[in-house]
Amino acid sequence: MADQRYVFFLSDGTGITAETLGATLLTQFEFVEFKKTTLPFINTPDKARNTVDYINHLAVQGSRPIVLSTTVNDEIRNILRQCQGLFMDFFDAYIPAIEAELGLKSIHATGRAHGLSDARRYNARIDAMNYAMEHDDGQSTRDLSKADVILIAPSRCGKTPTTLYLALQYGIFATNFPLTEEDLEAQKLPASLKGLAPKCFGLTSDPDRLHQVRTERRPGSKYASLPQCAYELRQAESLYRKQNVPFINSANMSIEEIAAIVLQEKNLRRQSA
Amino acid sequence: MADQRYVFFLSDGTGITAETLGATLLTQFEFVEFKKTTLPFINTPDKARNTVDYINHLAVQGSRPIVLSTTVNDEIRNILRQCQGLFMDFFDAYIPAIEAELGLKSIHATGRAHGLSDARRYNARIDAMNYAMEHDDGQSTRDLSKADVILIAPSRCGKTPTTLYLALQYGIFATNFPLTEEDLEAQKLPASLKGLAPKCFGLTSDPDRLHQVRTERRPGSKYASLPQCAYELRQAESLYRKQNVPFINSANMSIEEIAAIVLQEKNLRRQSA
Repeated sequence: MADQRYVFFLSDGTGITAETLGATLLTQFEFVEFKKTTLPFINTPDKARNTVDYINHLAVQGSRPIVLSTTVNDEIRNILRQCQGLFMDFFDAYIPAIEAELGLKSIHATGRAHGLSDARRYNARIDAMNYAMEHDDGQSTRDLSKADVILIAPSRCGKTPTTLYLALQYGIFATNFPLTEEDLEAQKLPASLKGLAPKCFGLTSDPDRLHQVRTERRPGSKYASLPQCAYELRQAESLYRKQNVPFINSANMSIEEIAAIVLQEKNLRRQSA
Repeated sequence: MADQRYVFFLSDGTGITAETLGATLLTQFEFVEFKKTTLPFINTPDKARNTVDYINHLAVQGSRPIVLSTTVNDEIRNILRQCQGLFMDFFDAYIPAIEAELGLKSIHATGRAHGLSDARRYNARIDAMNYAMEHDDGQSTRDLSKADVILIAPSRCGKTPTTLYLALQYGIFATNFPLTEEDLEAQKLPASLKGLAPKCFGLTSDPDRLHQVRTERRPGSKYASLPQCAYELRQAESLYRKQNVPFINSANMSIEEIAAIVLQEKNLRRQSA
């Protein structure tokens, strides 16, 4: 039987940084069943003491919990530190070295990483999301010149989730167009993308994978059939080459990986949340 | 003039973890202009050496760069470590303590945090996103019983971005319904949400803020007028109380903060990416 460990992500903010950090670390350990709990908004000493009590209550029942904290407030962090777990705080680990390097003290402000402290950047993300929603799947051709990147691909290669991720996470004005049978046949970009080839980025997939994804959507259809999927992907790849559109095969990639490659290939500045 | 520093986020994966952590750390320092660059997919010794050369090239021009790395591969990390910057690696900082605690060695596998290593969870996120897109703004009432949470609010209080964020980031089946003038007048939930009140979560805003956001969309309209905004928000809050729907005022909150509160209030399990 696998070892079992409680893991707590603690924060005086949203807990998003603690979760991201923790998820990344824990993927490096196999054969352990991690039971994860995020406790956000621990922003008073009382809440911190209740959190310690809760962790200690679980600690007596089994192995020592692992506690990852991103707590900016010193008083609260020092209460949390007293819990009976392996306590590791993110600011403890990094802030002193950066303070020494910069010759500056940090400001100890909560809610700056995932709050509204940078309103301009935040509004850019919301504008980008509205843009992505309005333009998704080629449904609008208005203001296409505003797009930072236009994803093109046959249906179900990952255009929409990647577009939304680029908008929400990075404030990138992204949109996407399906490649229709006519486009694929003619080996041309959709007519509304005339002159916009330099903004385009293509996605392909593997025939088997596309067949599987489309079958979930429309079982038994021509659309989902393996020969149709293979045909569309072959034609799409040939179109990308002909039109000088960079592309990647998304079959074994996550949204995050596709997005990171698109940003890199199109030389777009990442504005992380 | 503000001090200026180059900051590099290095990774043998997407760089998303490095960026998220780095952004959180750097928000704690004011009066420094950070010039940030993310260099992802440094997955060969050659790429690592080129990265070091690039950083060193910039290092001679000004202050020492700050280099935050999330590099799983030991060989690559040890090359990167030789750069002339303040080098801090995330795995260096945490993995040894967790290894000691668990009595296990870490597996040193790249691409696990934001890749496809957990296909089930990844597919859940894509399914959740498709669900959110299909149901956005009350446009479908199919399968509403599958929703984990249904956000309700007057137009432009943040329903759609929060819904998409919950879906993409956490794989939560989230959807949203606008509250129409009729709903607000009758003090009832939309008819299609009959019996679904326990899944509902309400958003309000401040009249001034809503007025401003709606004015960007439809300047000078009744819809955007301050009295209309004030009326709708007052009626919405009263409706939430009457129907026992928990709610928050989103006026000064980021998507991430709203999402974190919704998860907490509705007791939904977070499945971080």
